[in-house]
Amino acid sequence: MNTQDTALVLIDLQKESNFGLQQFDHVIKHTKQTIDACRDADIPVIYTRQINRHDKIGLSKGEPLTSEGTPFYYSTEKDNHEIIDDVAPEENDLIIDKYRWSAFYESNLDLTLRSLGVKNIIVGGVVTDGCVMTTVFDAYFRDYKVHFVKDMCTTSNEGAHMASIMIMSNWIYNMEIYNTPNLIKRLKGESYKHWSFEHVDNQKFTPENMRNVFQTLSPEEE
Amino acid sequence: MNTQDTALVLIDLQKESNFGLQQFDHVIKHTKQTIDACRDADIPVIYTRQINRHDKIGLSKGEPLTSEGTPFYYSTEKDNHEIIDDVAPEENDLIIDKYRWSAFYESNLDLTLRSLGVKNIIVGGVVTDGCVMTTVFDAYFRDYKVHFVKDMCTTSNEGAHMASIMIMSNWIYNMEIYNTPNLIKRLKGESYKHWSFEHVDNQKFTPENMRNVFQTLSPEEE
Amino acid sequence: MNTQDTALVLIDLQKESNFGLQQFDHVIKHTKQTIDACRDADIPVIYTRQINRHDKIGLSKGEPLTSEGTPFYYSTEKDNHEIIDDVAPEENDLIIDKYRWSAFYESNLDLTLRSLGVKNIIVGGVVTDGCVMTTVFDAYFRDYKVHFVKDMCTTSNEGAHMASIMIMSNWIYNMEIYNTPNLIKRLKGESYKHWSFEHVDNQKFTPENMRNVFQTLSPEEE
Amino acid sequence: MNTQDTALVLIDLQKESNFGLQQFDHVIKHTKQTIDACRDADIPVIYTRQINRHDKIGLSKGEPLTSEGTPFYYSTEKDNHEIIDDVAPEENDLIIDKYRWSAFYESNLDLTLRSLGVKNIIVGGVVTDGCVMTTVFDAYFRDYKVHFVKDMCTTSNEGAHMASIMIMSNWIYNMEIYNTPNLIKRLKGESYKHWSFEHVDNQKFTPENMRNVFQTLSPEEE
Repeated sequence: MNTQDTALVLIDLQKESNFGLQQFDHVIKHTKQTIDACRDADIPVIYTRQINRHDKIGLSKGEPLTSEGTPFYYSTEKDNHEIIDDVAPEENDLIIDKYRWSAFYESNLDLTLRSLGVKNIIVGGVVTDGCVMTTVFDAYFRDYKVHFVKDMCTTSNEGAHMASIMIMSNWIYNMEIYNTPNLIKRLKGESYKHWSFEHVDNQKFTPENMRNVFQTLSPEEE
Repeated sequence: MNTQDTALVLIDLQKESNFGLQQFDHVIKHTKQTIDACRDADIPVIYTRQINRHDKIGLSKGEPLTSEGTPFYYSTEKDNHEIIDDVAPEENDLIIDKYRWSAFYESNLDLTLRSLGVKNIIVGGVVTDGCVMTTVFDAYFRDYKVHFVKDMCTTSNEGAHMASIMIMSNWIYNMEIYNTPNLIKRLKGESYKHWSFEHVDNQKFTPENMRNVFQTLSPEEE
Repeated sequence: MNTQDTALVLIDLQKESNFGLQQFDHVIKHTKQTIDACRDADIPVIYTRQINRHDKIGLSKGEPLTSEGTPFYYSTEKDNHEIIDDVAPEENDLIIDKYRWSAFYESNLDLTLRSLGVKNIIVGGVVTDGCVMTTVFDAYFRDYKVHFVKDMCTTSNEGAHMASIMIMSNWIYNMEIYNTPNLIKRLKGESYKHWSFEHVDNQKFTPENMRNVFQTLSPEEE
Repeated sequence: MNTQDTALVLIDLQKESNFGLQQFDHVIKHTKQTIDACRDADIPVIYTRQINRHDKIGLSKGEPLTSEGTPFYYSTEKDNHEIIDDVAPEENDLIIDKYRWSAFYESNLDLTLRSLGVKNIIVGGVVTDGCVMTTVFDAYFRDYKVHFVKDMCTTSNEGAHMASIMIMSNWIYNMEIYNTPNLIKRLKGESYKHWSFEHVDNQKFTPENMRNVFQTLSPEEE
């Protein structure tokens, strides 16, 4: 990862996203640390925002509605679609609005990354098994190398968080997985640990051995 | 589901795919039954094929290579990229070649479905947590309603199969889940059972309760 | 054209666009009339805006710069990227920001039109041979039927305006061409005249006969 | 143009395309010369093919049909969709099938170019004002630099050929225009002439001065 061709992509860290996600405060804390390290390394910071128009135009099929018939989540009516204050964008940061889970779908994310000459993206945000996972797969399809920071991601349940990370690690052959301290070490040019792949479809699991298999993704915590 | 605006989409049922997937013979058996029912109902049958050029042009990053430096999987050099004989296409069927996991990425699948006036897709194939899941998310982004036939899908490990189905069921709000006998009943206009959603992000699970939660997706088997 | 599945798409009628386009005041006058008729018929009004970030991220290659190194045209630094006051959007209208000439490229236009159930688009705006033409071709690729209002479009030179309309008429087989009075008659359910195609690649021309051939596109003005 | 990051893209040089295009034999002759020079320089050669399925699935709206109701042009029923023998692909060349005028629309062209690390494309083929022009605009949107070889392109009428080249030259800010001898000189590292841009929207024309303005695009022929 050359810092010259790297961007930080933060998925849907919006006020609305604080709907009971597990350890969301940890995610915010780690994200702040990573943002600071990226700014120090002149790595551009890109935020995505899920947007549901209050008039429902462009809304995903089946999206929940309020009793008034407006979108229940991420509605433009309120300020809940804004980025959380603790990790709020600075003036020169990029904000990409999106209308589907993947931040690449009918957004200007890919043209932005191409314009910046980006080849590596550092990814975090919410939810691991939804917007983050679909964005990461789409990044892989477009030949970006994904540096996945697992403690900068969360979702509503432990099982889906763990499973989606193992699924990504199985099928995104060039993905590298970090925790925040090790990612920051890498950005600073210090020695670091991460987890990457030797074999395709490596993380086979059953419910019974899932916790153990997931632990193998965390060599840096040994 | 009106049979007039429905298509069957079968993901990567290629000779190459027989690489140790769980209960692959069951998947093929169920797929044959569904293909027959679709032909009876004049529902078009669309096959996708993963294609890796033997000269590696267009290859996904990190794709495994042979000792000769050619793609290990789905190479055009051999006939392993052909559809499995037992479910082979007929003359009027559609074959969509693809170079990334999602069958919508840089393929002509969406224009084909639009041309056919399709609003509903019945989906099966392999692997559940890879090409099937990424295709299903992409179908949802494009407003197609997905009818997911879970015993027409498999992958290399039980955990990823179960988890990816629960993840799809959580975030694809209009997805309906069937087993093959009930899907066929529906196509024939008979009474049938399926599983669909009442709440967003409904399938919360931990490794410990995962088997039980997954069972709730199978009311038709009660 | 059923008004139920129709949208009006207005390309780049921004303050910046007043850079010496021919008869731009006529375009604005006709557009106002069409907007009014569309509102009366409950046809949604969609505006596109060309956006060049002042920090040049995402900028098209070769885009002219000021002496300060910021984009010369459509920069977000000034309010020149806003829609012209005379045809300004109302609260419920849709605004699609775009970063390339075609309004479909990495924007949410297609998902918006799909969500609205649109099959027909009425198109006007600037410039005929640039953003309008590339958007119209992209609409055709996605199976939308284009109703092109030629006196709601202009560009910087008469030749490119005429030629691009004839090129579109040659290769967009289902396009219909109107002037504003006849389009409005159609929206009101009155009898109207328009020009549509009998043969592929029908408008063959040389510089010498170009004016005459272009006249054949205007039967409503006989 | 570094030959290391360059590809030759030839649009729709299919048997079917011999339907009365102007000086088509010259286009084929020049294309052969350019193909040879590209092979000598290890520049990959990519052919696109327009494909209309004989069962009309995926067909563009309004596409002409035979009396039997099958596509009149580029039908897969006959071998007319094959590349013309005189410029036929060699074993290692790339063939991109497409279903709409632009070779980027729902094809694997962009993925192929990215995989090859291409930044520059040399473009020729037919028709100038249709498949070539829409492909060239789409290439520009994706930040490729286009090297346009005007005597490797043609269409059915002189006016549309000239006009579409001037329109591209106006709005594709980084396009360079060559004739075949000068392109080949460039590939060989010899001194060459071409035409490129000093100002945006430079080629203003009327029917009356169109021939003269078009001449200014040909400094190499002075």
